[in-house]
Amino acid sequence: MKHVLESQQFTKEILYDLFKKADSLKENSEKLLENKILATIFYEPSTRTRLSFESAMLKLGGRVISTENAKEFSSAVKGESVRDTIKVIAAYADCIVIRHYEEGSAKEAAEASSVPVINAGDGKGQHPTQALLDIYTIHKELERIDGIKIAMVGDLLSGRTVRSLCYLLGKFKDIEIVFVSPDNLKMKDDIKEYLNKHNIKFREENDLNKILQEVDVVYMTRIQKERMSQNDYENAKGKFIINEKNFNLVNKNSIIMHPLPHVEEIELPMEIEENDKRVAYFRQAENGLYIRMALLNILINEKR
Amino acid sequence: MKHVLESQQFTKEILYDLFKKADSLKENSEKLLENKILATIFYEPSTRTRLSFESAMLKLGGRVISTENAKEFSSAVKGESVRDTIKVIAAYADCIVIRHYEEGSAKEAAEASSVPVINAGDGKGQHPTQALLDIYTIHKELERIDGIKIAMVGDLLSGRTVRSLCYLLGKFKDIEIVFVSPDNLKMKDDIKEYLNKHNIKFREENDLNKILQEVDVVYMTRIQKERMSQNDYENAKGKFIINEKNFNLVNKNSIIMHPLPHVEEIELPMEIEENDKRVAYFRQAENGLYIRMALLNILINEKR
Amino acid sequence: MKHVLESQQFTKEILYDLFKKADSLKENSEKLLENKILATIFYEPSTRTRLSFESAMLKLGGRVISTENAKEFSSAVKGESVRDTIKVIAAYADCIVIRHYEEGSAKEAAEASSVPVINAGDGKGQHPTQALLDIYTIHKELERIDGIKIAMVGDLLSGRTVRSLCYLLGKFKDIEIVFVSPDNLKMKDDIKEYLNKHNIKFREENDLNKILQEVDVVYMTRIQKERMSQNDYENAKGKFIINEKNFNLVNKNSIIMHPLPHVEEIELPMEIEENDKRVAYFRQAENGLYIRMALLNILINEKR
Repeated sequence: MKHVLESQQFTKEILYDLFKKADSLKENSEKLLENKILATIFYEPSTRTRLSFESAMLKLGGRVISTENAKEFSSAVKGESVRDTIKVIAAYADCIVIRHYEEGSAKEAAEASSVPVINAGDGKGQHPTQALLDIYTIHKELERIDGIKIAMVGDLLSGRTVRSLCYLLGKFKDIEIVFVSPDNLKMKDDIKEYLNKHNIKFREENDLNKILQEVDVVYMTRIQKERMSQNDYENAKGKFIINEKNFNLVNKNSIIMHPLPHVEEIELPMEIEENDKRVAYFRQAENGLYIRMALLNILINEKR
Repeated sequence: MKHVLESQQFTKEILYDLFKKADSLKENSEKLLENKILATIFYEPSTRTRLSFESAMLKLGGRVISTENAKEFSSAVKGESVRDTIKVIAAYADCIVIRHYEEGSAKEAAEASSVPVINAGDGKGQHPTQALLDIYTIHKELERIDGIKIAMVGDLLSGRTVRSLCYLLGKFKDIEIVFVSPDNLKMKDDIKEYLNKHNIKFREENDLNKILQEVDVVYMTRIQKERMSQNDYENAKGKFIINEKNFNLVNKNSIIMHPLPHVEEIELPMEIEENDKRVAYFRQAENGLYIRMALLNILINEKR
Repeated sequence: MKHVLESQQFTKEILYDLFKKADSLKENSEKLLENKILATIFYEPSTRTRLSFESAMLKLGGRVISTENAKEFSSAVKGESVRDTIKVIAAYADCIVIRHYEEGSAKEAAEASSVPVINAGDGKGQHPTQALLDIYTIHKELERIDGIKIAMVGDLLSGRTVRSLCYLLGKFKDIEIVFVSPDNLKMKDDIKEYLNKHNIKFREENDLNKILQEVDVVYMTRIQKERMSQNDYENAKGKFIINEKNFNLVNKNSIIMHPLPHVEEIELPMEIEENDKRVAYFRQAENGLYIRMALLNILINEKR
């Protein structure tokens, strides 16, 4: 593994190895990457993702150089290619995390770079470390991945995370996926074909309350207002909500996940969010830290 | 002391303890916070304050993750609450410094956070570490706080620093405060009531030159143009100025303070600013570093 | 050497000493600046330059505080002078790198600062560390500076780098410079007078292909569209280009340099850029790291 570009690249074996490393780094991480430098090069801001990578690097004893202004010295301003930018940055750092607004940019960066590149989201493309923390969270919370039943709820059309998670679930056995989305935001055919090819059972449903009682994981997503027309948003919003009324339909040993930020699709009182162990999304966000520590350690130390 | 939210929370005892720690950390600070991470989360830029906190953390051997773009993943953009944002950041760091444009946000952050939160200014609310460095400066420069006579000059209506300093002075004995401000920018009644309740003598005066000769501390402030109408600004500006002419009315052992940035309200030649020890405002800014080191050390190490 | 403000300040002796230190720091740099803090204060973004300085500081074991938002607390917003800003920052850091949009600001900062200041570009003024990495690159690639023949090609009017490089070349012997530029973007008279005074031979030429065969160094520059009228740009662009056709006119032991970013003035296939050793501009960018490490080490350690 030289670069991390898309979730398909991970085999089941690599995933379990990653989980083990993440568990172990959570306990003890000191100085593994001392004197190493991570560059976080963001062509658009994504503070949560950036801070998570930077905290991961610092906890490993490494250092960070960073920009949320990468656009300033990119093609948009003076006409420089991502390739040239990354060739130069690669001389300053031991690993590069890139976030870009155009699909394919992470791959272009990886081709130019002499050091490992991690894709932290490229336009409508992938965000593989989000998918990794999602599958790691399922593994930790349920103590298994094979055989689980998962509902994916909300904006399945624009949602990058559910698509990447489907790719990863395709590596496992006896998975069952239930898609629950407004009519105008359904999961696309390419993912359905992929799931068919990998013998993953899936179906589409409309009754969220019925589904809540059936599944091990409820993966909620936000309606991405900023990626659709006002009309599409009005038709979609508020259709599928978890609140105090239907929350208790969720099985005692099941979990609710969400890539965050969450808005109106989850309306639980603070009391429940803080104390009910079925609310897994804050632990899920924290898991991002350990998965990214594991990735950085593997990429930078294997390079040596 | 779990969080630092407002200047009222500090007792005289805690203040003197803080001063002692600040003095000692100025001399020797190495590695007290090694492997600890500070997150500076700024919803609006305030570079001086942010760099002061970050330098304090680095001098203690700690590390920093930072954003001036916190708005990008806040309610303003996708609808996430400060509470959710801070819950996630708290997993990445050992302490959070927050600056927000809305009063009350720091308290909201503290309630959500599993790690200590420091308020670095929330809207019209407080900026307690500024007040702490002000009172520490008086203590260091005059070698006493009880019994001092202080003039607060300029924009006493919008000025957050003079209000917070009044709260702190309320903890001490035999203080005398003279308010000198344009008619449209007078100190508000809530502070006057607080001072009355704490037996602090105060009065309002108009003749700056007379007052300069009487007081131990001249606390100058900038007319905050950006927080008032053009008309109010025109009526207020230039009313109370310290320049080469009246500077020598200040007693030899008295000091001039200013929270900075200063503009036209202080017009002293470079020669005087660099060499006359009555000009205390650059030492005051430097004291912010030591007070913040002391706070970070107490908050993060007491948490352990 | 207290500050780094302009390329003229470097003697031949200091330059060779700097080259030696840069060579040696490339091999071993650990912990020379442990516990030291660098402040990068950018009044306008220049991510490449900033990251290069920050990486240099981190590789020396130091730490960094940083802003690309310095304008936010400068005269533009509240009326504070660069002088006051820098006086305060100097209390937080052991060295300051400043980038400003106004010529002369770096000098103003240096006068106010109690710690070393490095000019990272001030408006139409200088960017001395770029000139240092350029001359260091010539030294490393050609193993000599005296006696070289160099073509400077492109926007010689607005280009800050070619001007600064001329100042440095003036320190050496038997240099020959050929200026190749569109008619509306010629090198200014002040530099020509300086070269005359220092006995540096120079001439202006129009036939790039002829010149490519004659020189040891081809220093290409971008037409700075953002600093001229649309009309001037149209008249200048595309006049002097290196591409697959004329590239092989360059002698086997000669090099092509460019301060980057490069756009249409160099149109070489990736194959050549990656493998032909005459393409020196990515090595040139990397050399910036070592030169800046050498400078930081000298400035901060000599201060002690």
